[in-house]
Amino acid sequence: MSSNESSLAKLHAIDRECNHLAKAAAVLQWDQETYLPEMGVEDRSEQLAILETIAHDKFCSPETGRLLGEMGSVPETPRGDEKLPELERDFLKVLRRDYDRAVKLPSDFVAAAAKAGGLSQAAWVKARKANDFSAFLPHLKTMIDLSRRQAEYWGYGKGSAGSVYDGLLGIYEPGMGEAAISAVFAPIRERLSALLKKIAAKPAPDASFLDYEFDPEIQSAYSGSLMQSLGFDTRRGRLDVSAHPFTTTLGSDDIRITTRYLPRNLLSSIFSTIHESGHAFYELSFPHELRGTSLADGASMGIHESQSRFWENVIGHSRPFWEGQLPVLQSYFPSLKGISLDSFYRAVNLAGPSLIRIEADEVSYSLHIILRFELERGLFSGEIDPADLPALWRQKMKDILGVEPETDADGVLQDVHWSMGSFGYFPSYALGNLYGLQFFQKLKADIPNFDAIVAKGDFSVIQNWLKENIYLWGCRLDPPELLKKVTGQSLQAEPFLNYIESKYSGIYGI
Amino acid sequence: MSSNESSLAKLHAIDRECNHLAKAAAVLQWDQETYLPEMGVEDRSEQLAILETIAHDKFCSPETGRLLGEMGSVPETPRGDEKLPELERDFLKVLRRDYDRAVKLPSDFVAAAAKAGGLSQAAWVKARKANDFSAFLPHLKTMIDLSRRQAEYWGYGKGSAGSVYDGLLGIYEPGMGEAAISAVFAPIRERLSALLKKIAAKPAPDASFLDYEFDPEIQSAYSGSLMQSLGFDTRRGRLDVSAHPFTTTLGSDDIRITTRYLPRNLLSSIFSTIHESGHAFYELSFPHELRGTSLADGASMGIHESQSRFWENVIGHSRPFWEGQLPVLQSYFPSLKGISLDSFYRAVNLAGPSLIRIEADEVSYSLHIILRFELERGLFSGEIDPADLPALWRQKMKDILGVEPETDADGVLQDVHWSMGSFGYFPSYALGNLYGLQFFQKLKADIPNFDAIVAKGDFSVIQNWLKENIYLWGCRLDPPELLKKVTGQSLQAEPFLNYIESKYSGIYGI
Repeated sequence: MSSNESSLAKLHAIDRECNHLAKAAAVLQWDQETYLPEMGVEDRSEQLAILETIAHDKFCSPETGRLLGEMGSVPETPRGDEKLPELERDFLKVLRRDYDRAVKLPSDFVAAAAKAGGLSQAAWVKARKANDFSAFLPHLKTMIDLSRRQAEYWGYGKGSAGSVYDGLLGIYEPGMGEAAISAVFAPIRERLSALLKKIAAKPAPDASFLDYEFDPEIQSAYSGSLMQSLGFDTRRGRLDVSAHPFTTTLGSDDIRITTRYLPRNLLSSIFSTIHESGHAFYELSFPHELRGTSLADGASMGIHESQSRFWENVIGHSRPFWEGQLPVLQSYFPSLKGISLDSFYRAVNLAGPSLIRIEADEVSYSLHIILRFELERGLFSGEIDPADLPALWRQKMKDILGVEPETDADGVLQDVHWSMGSFGYFPSYALGNLYGLQFFQKLKADIPNFDAIVAKGDFSVIQNWLKENIYLWGCRLDPPELLKKVTGQSLQAEPFLNYIESKYSGIYGI
Repeated sequence: MSSNESSLAKLHAIDRECNHLAKAAAVLQWDQETYLPEMGVEDRSEQLAILETIAHDKFCSPETGRLLGEMGSVPETPRGDEKLPELERDFLKVLRRDYDRAVKLPSDFVAAAAKAGGLSQAAWVKARKANDFSAFLPHLKTMIDLSRRQAEYWGYGKGSAGSVYDGLLGIYEPGMGEAAISAVFAPIRERLSALLKKIAAKPAPDASFLDYEFDPEIQSAYSGSLMQSLGFDTRRGRLDVSAHPFTTTLGSDDIRITTRYLPRNLLSSIFSTIHESGHAFYELSFPHELRGTSLADGASMGIHESQSRFWENVIGHSRPFWEGQLPVLQSYFPSLKGISLDSFYRAVNLAGPSLIRIEADEVSYSLHIILRFELERGLFSGEIDPADLPALWRQKMKDILGVEPETDADGVLQDVHWSMGSFGYFPSYALGNLYGLQFFQKLKADIPNFDAIVAKGDFSVIQNWLKENIYLWGCRLDPPELLKKVTGQSLQAEPFLNYIESKYSGIYGI
């Protein structure tokens, strides 16, 4: 074994161990969200803190830095081995990126940020409950400052090529900066805002047949059947209940999703089951050679979201899908018998202006994101003073969505993200919609009988296409590279806008 | 802070971290037994192996040895601090014992033993299925040899004060050797064997009303109600389903038990729920100053078993208990309405000779253990050749229990323990019965209206007595010390024998 081979093998061993530790921590977190007894929280936090410290110390050890140094600088071909396979070069690229990101933050900064984050989240919970933005403001300022410093440690801002906000966006969307995002958000803002106003002027389709009690146990049985119909292999995962639906990877063959069963909201469990299954399919389908390595991961938050939203919206909210599924759903819930496919399709696609992001429909969702993007951009360019956020929020809501919140609790205080310092996270949600429709355009070209396949419920053709075009890459490619590889194009708003406009003009007769 | 104080604080930090890691591993194991998807096993094994290696390396580091050395030799008062509180001296005693036990085994021996154990268990599974002892024999010989060497590394055998078998017994029952155990097992063998023959000659009470299908979902609801009636605070634990019932501690306030619901065996879920609740009460009740330390543990396997068996048998199989619980059970299972307390009490206390240990009743159970104890003793003294085990097993079964297995699968191959090298483990089960009845004698003297309390279902008085007399010690005292502290006596068979003889003479009219 050459010295390079041995360094590479050692890096793989470190990576493998750190990934196993991360999965072990994920098991503890999954349990915390699903089954942990009420009073078990305190010990669980300490257990998680210890696992995270061990994994962090192992990954960030000088040994890792030394071994990465021996492999040469990336992405150039490593010293002494011109023939290193491309897979290994991608491995080193990802490892070095994660290593640099971790070691560039001084440990006293990390500790201070963790502490401030805890206080800030607690303050946000109270402030939202009391509808008191001013109580949250000092914490928000601290979190903005910490995020700025974090990006600066990584080399953004202060005269570098990328802005501070570019640095923050890069955590979630490697390779995507504020300029590129801003360019696609502009036409979305304009055209969807206009569409939403037209929709608001039309009468809403009848959805009164959904305004009933739907037995949570039967919802659970249907969700189980649904995930399997979509192609979820339950030997490799499971569905449980948690307060907020999520997907987590506890092992290469152990991907778990959760949902919740609200008696008066049947659609909530159905669409969260489909959404989380979409995340799970990605995690379940990385190729064998990536198993257990850091490359067995989604390309980005937004690419991951493109998969969950593709399944939830493009498939799950389509007429062909319900052509196949409505009779199944009716067999679980006889009260829905007699509802026509057309009525049901229109009822699950109700759209209109809304105040709350997480309750928004397909048309207004991206507009909620654009509002947040614009505010975040202003905060980090210095054009916006945090104290002005409540007023700016209301004004932008009116401009973009045509509604205005009566309280800050339903306005600027509605999301947890900023209290955690997760600036730059929101855009990924909307980028997911764009990526998803760009992929879909290609998929539909490759699978011309897509609608018939969906109506038949034969999703394996779709699963295979996604595997062969997207999942096989893991996180070897950044979002722009992956888009290019799959579609031949850079980021575009057009496929998404065409899809939304065509679908909702049809439903609302516009 | 003196140098001693600082060493002690460091030892506490190591202990705390290792215990948190052990609990994290316990979460992964619990999940493996309850919810892990079928194909998740492979990654889970690797995750567990990594956690165990990290915890082992941390605990067995030269740093731990150096710090223990600085604290002086135990159990004498540590150097330089005559006033170290007793709690800290107990802490050091337990830590040093565990440290010595771990570091005295060479790492190549540990690796070889782990590998041999894996092969041996797999061979046992096949041999039992094929009823082929000879296929298992070479593995059994290896496991005996490894266990002998393990005890020798710890300083047993070869002219030391304790025998090799003493060394193995000490893993599970610190302070109990083969001489002490043998002395109490002799009268049990004689008197219970005689009682069993008398019982076998009597007609069995009618239990046909239990030979029905009992809906697993209703069994589950009843088990949940039952554990709470006993005093299980479900904010600090839970009940789930697994193939084999167990109790596990995932945190100071997170103790989980499992059971299983066999449609045709209602008693199985009921008594395993009570048994595991008994284990859980012990783990839930260590005093605050032991939380998170290695002292928050049962005094021994047998002392733990004394608690589970006390709840399962002394309470759960008693007439007063069913006086209170039978109406509740009948409300869950209307088919049992009309069954009298007397009939039910006799049906749950069926006794008689049996072939299989894990299906044995209160009378024959200890006899199964005594058989294994005698064989283990002979194996390690060299008086028994492993090849002769099948024949010896059959002969002893006939002598002690009055029945003979037709196959080795139902005889010498029935238990997993020897295939894992867990020699010395079996006696703890029977010791649990003895400890339990010695404690009960004292408890009943302190709580004279015990029967009335049990009938009323007011278990808090009993819980408090157990807390104040047993649980408060954690593992600060060895079993002989704890027995002395609680009862003023050494290990005795008499209380257990009197209890069994009196109870079953009554039931069977002997």
